[in-house]
Amino acid sequence: MQAPKPIKRFAEIFAALPGIGPRQAIRLAFYFIQQGVDFAHTTAGVIADLRKIKLCRQCFYIHENPSGLCDICEDKKRDMGVIAVVEKETDVMSIENTGKFNGRYLIIGDLRKTGVLETEQRLRLQSLKTWIEKEMGGKAKEIIIALNPNPQSDLIASLIKEELKNLALKTTRLGRGIPSGGEIEFADEETLGSALERRG
Amino acid sequence: MQAPKPIKRFAEIFAALPGIGPRQAIRLAFYFIQQGVDFAHTTAGVIADLRKIKLCRQCFYIHENPSGLCDICEDKKRDMGVIAVVEKETDVMSIENTGKFNGRYLIIGDLRKTGVLETEQRLRLQSLKTWIEKEMGGKAKEIIIALNPNPQSDLIASLIKEELKNLALKTTRLGRGIPSGGEIEFADEETLGSALERRG
Repeated sequence: MQAPKPIKRFAEIFAALPGIGPRQAIRLAFYFIQQGVDFAHTTAGVIADLRKIKLCRQCFYIHENPSGLCDICEDKKRDMGVIAVVEKETDVMSIENTGKFNGRYLIIGDLRKTGVLETEQRLRLQSLKTWIEKEMGGKAKEIIIALNPNPQSDLIASLIKEELKNLALKTTRLGRGIPSGGEIEFADEETLGSALERRG
Repeated sequence: MQAPKPIKRFAEIFAALPGIGPRQAIRLAFYFIQQGVDFAHTTAGVIADLRKIKLCRQCFYIHENPSGLCDICEDKKRDMGVIAVVEKETDVMSIENTGKFNGRYLIIGDLRKTGVLETEQRLRLQSLKTWIEKEMGGKAKEIIIALNPNPQSDLIASLIKEELKNLALKTTRLGRGIPSGGEIEFADEETLGSALERRG
């Protein structure tokens, strides 16, 4: 049975959003129809309002500042010489929530399964280089490659390290080991191995 | 760390949609921001276009017809005396896809966990009664209570049966048993019991 055109068009768009499949897209369409016109209007509005959000010209994090820089890059109290390279915006939010990091970021963008740096990612690294050269005389204090610990990212991390060599006094990665509240018994070999290597 | 207001508002609305949690709502916000203004515009558009969809005044299925009736209720070739009472629109679509049913429907609406008929559901049953009285002289040929087979729905089904008694020559429910491709070994007792009772 064919759904009416407005539902089909809605489902096509929504089924392509991350984490939403064709079935949920149809369910959402019916949900909107049941909620009525005002709710659809509100939802359309919150989507349209996202246009106010821009990406920082330095680190590519989100912001609404006229300067073109995000709150983190604008904050003079942060350590300007320490840069964490992360994959996505939510990683910045998670790290900020720890309250343990006072440097700046570079968001490199979603890592696909290709195991290579894509054009957009190369451009962002290039912009980091320019920024280190201009602002830090060619050498950052530290670059932390803060990618998820998995074989894919390990490969990308070494590519990034290669790209950025000679641009920092030291290049580090996040510590690996047993997570807080985790149990040795249930840790996989890889994790337990890292925990042993990085004991201290 | 606080997200900018447009992202927070977006996340509030989207986290409340069925099947989308707070984390996915944030991910979706970033996705829209990365896709850019045109994509947000298209998406807002497909949501707004759902206003063209109306609910059938007889069976509460969706339609776009000026008559106020859905395509199924308008179709004179269907058996007007057989009515399947279903929970939701997607159930209609699933039954239509089998090509095995040629009657009409009544969508009773989402069954909550309360185990009672809510006001909206009582109104819809009332409208079915009026419709049977006006169009079928007070007796439908058959009412099929096509709710999901589970203890909650069983209770509601018996309430509906009570509400509709004397309005149909027979009232039936969907067959229960081992699904096609299923295995006896893995069927739960309830299902296997039904399959035995309804053998034939």
